[in-house]
Amino acid sequence: MSERQVRPAPQDVRTVACIGAGVIGAGWVAHFLAQGYDVIAWDPAPEAEERLRALVDAAWPALESLGLAAGADRSRLSVSEDLEQAVAGADVVQESAPEDLDLKIDLLARIDAATPRDVVISSSTSGYTMTQMQVGAAGPERLVVGHPFNPPYLIPLVEVVGGDRTAPDVVAWTSQFFEHAGKSVITMDREVPGFIANRLQEALWREALHMVDNGEATVEQIDASITQGPGLRWAFHGPMLTFHLAGGHGGMAHMLDHFGPSLKAPWTRLDAPELTPDLRDAVVEGVDRSDGRPVQELVAERDRLLIGVMRTLQELRS
Amino acid sequence: MSERQVRPAPQDVRTVACIGAGVIGAGWVAHFLAQGYDVIAWDPAPEAEERLRALVDAAWPALESLGLAAGADRSRLSVSEDLEQAVAGADVVQESAPEDLDLKIDLLARIDAATPRDVVISSSTSGYTMTQMQVGAAGPERLVVGHPFNPPYLIPLVEVVGGDRTAPDVVAWTSQFFEHAGKSVITMDREVPGFIANRLQEALWREALHMVDNGEATVEQIDASITQGPGLRWAFHGPMLTFHLAGGHGGMAHMLDHFGPSLKAPWTRLDAPELTPDLRDAVVEGVDRSDGRPVQELVAERDRLLIGVMRTLQELRS
Repeated sequence: MSERQVRPAPQDVRTVACIGAGVIGAGWVAHFLAQGYDVIAWDPAPEAEERLRALVDAAWPALESLGLAAGADRSRLSVSEDLEQAVAGADVVQESAPEDLDLKIDLLARIDAATPRDVVISSSTSGYTMTQMQVGAAGPERLVVGHPFNPPYLIPLVEVVGGDRTAPDVVAWTSQFFEHAGKSVITMDREVPGFIANRLQEALWREALHMVDNGEATVEQIDASITQGPGLRWAFHGPMLTFHLAGGHGGMAHMLDHFGPSLKAPWTRLDAPELTPDLRDAVVEGVDRSDGRPVQELVAERDRLLIGVMRTLQELRS
Repeated sequence: MSERQVRPAPQDVRTVACIGAGVIGAGWVAHFLAQGYDVIAWDPAPEAEERLRALVDAAWPALESLGLAAGADRSRLSVSEDLEQAVAGADVVQESAPEDLDLKIDLLARIDAATPRDVVISSSTSGYTMTQMQVGAAGPERLVVGHPFNPPYLIPLVEVVGGDRTAPDVVAWTSQFFEHAGKSVITMDREVPGFIANRLQEALWREALHMVDNGEATVEQIDASITQGPGLRWAFHGPMLTFHLAGGHGGMAHMLDHFGPSLKAPWTRLDAPELTPDLRDAVVEGVDRSDGRPVQELVAERDRLLIGVMRTLQELRS
């Protein structure tokens, strides 16, 4: 164990250890390199290093065109054959091992044992909660989930959430670190299986699978229905704000009062919650956040952004 | 009834009657005007014409910047106070009345009675099937669903599907007409409540409402989780292709074989279908359509489009 005993401030992180270098782990490596960090990677798979460097090379032109941080360089990646050595010098650890609970429990315990005390260990898990995974570690308080989206070097979102035994200051530190490292962070107050975006994505995905299974739509139709429809808006307006704008001048309140009953319609296999006055009000208040801007102004912005996105896609494809 | 007895070819439509001029109906009016059609609108609400013209005016700069069809002009909109008169000269009718089944049944019967024989009558309904709505009309065979997305003057998608009594050639004509009118058409072989995109959207929306209801996420977090996460990809890669790319070199096959078991995990309140070999194969074959291009090439394209979208949004917002 290193003699350093105190975790650095989030903005003072210099070296990130990336444990596991599959699609997600390698994506993290590319991201941290582009942000100007030293990165030490470890992955036990044969030819892991070769594949990792190939993925970083493939991503690099994209990252260059987005703009690299000062000093960012692919030569600042080193690959270690030894897990303990890989994490010994880390200011923060990002674990991206396969989604296997026993494997994660064991691996996090090993990482915990070899990482300087108080250094934060974040897991990319999409399938488990930290409460489930931190049971084998001697220092569970510094284990936290930092769940990215594919590809982590481009998609900004990271969901940060602690387990039952994670220290609150570790959650706060992790969110600050990821913000500093160029990510868009959602800090969750409580664990819920799948976190937020994956639950939403999974609901859509399951409905899609049901439709294919029942012969109601083809895979191609499902994709086209999103990319030619709501997906174009979701790049900048989330599903809640989208419904707010679909309500016309009355916004979300009109939408819920008008379409609320259709929640009970069999439009999907997912049962709807009871639209209680409390839920209605929470949703209406939640979308009324855009600096008090009226719906008409949001509509004009939506159109402007939508046209920009459609034109960009058209130009890049031609 | 007009003396003309035969429906025009899809590309020969000159006059579109838009019945109902709320958010969706007015959006259709703007779209058809921008595409160079004559439009006759009817809406019984007080001040409907004023609001309609205001919405068309608000949308027009966007439509101009996207490029108007030759001869497109807002002066080619006329508003009739009489439903029968509005549809009497139409080459096609687009109905966008409020989502009320009895109202739709009655209105479609009235439209059917007043529209030249064989002229297609398409409904914007999002909530009902044409089988439910065509029961009052003397000519149900020419009634069809043409379901748009908000705003119809920008979002390309239209879902076309007939009811039990709709003639197959009417479905085909309608799809051809909308394609000619600049839309992106999905022609469905069978009716399913909510059609395709709304079922997917609704599954996501219901899961979001459950999360708000349970205090698992705020409305703001839900929106951010999409716009900073999967929503950025959904503007150009649908949910199925997205998972194909998340599978690395193994693509969708790897994804299903690797994450298939997580379908049973409680990641959403929507139950998953059984991942039978048939379903697995249908999905794997469904995503393997991009001219046989390997995953690596799709990944490069994804990155290019993603960066384009992100940059465009950044520029337009600054």
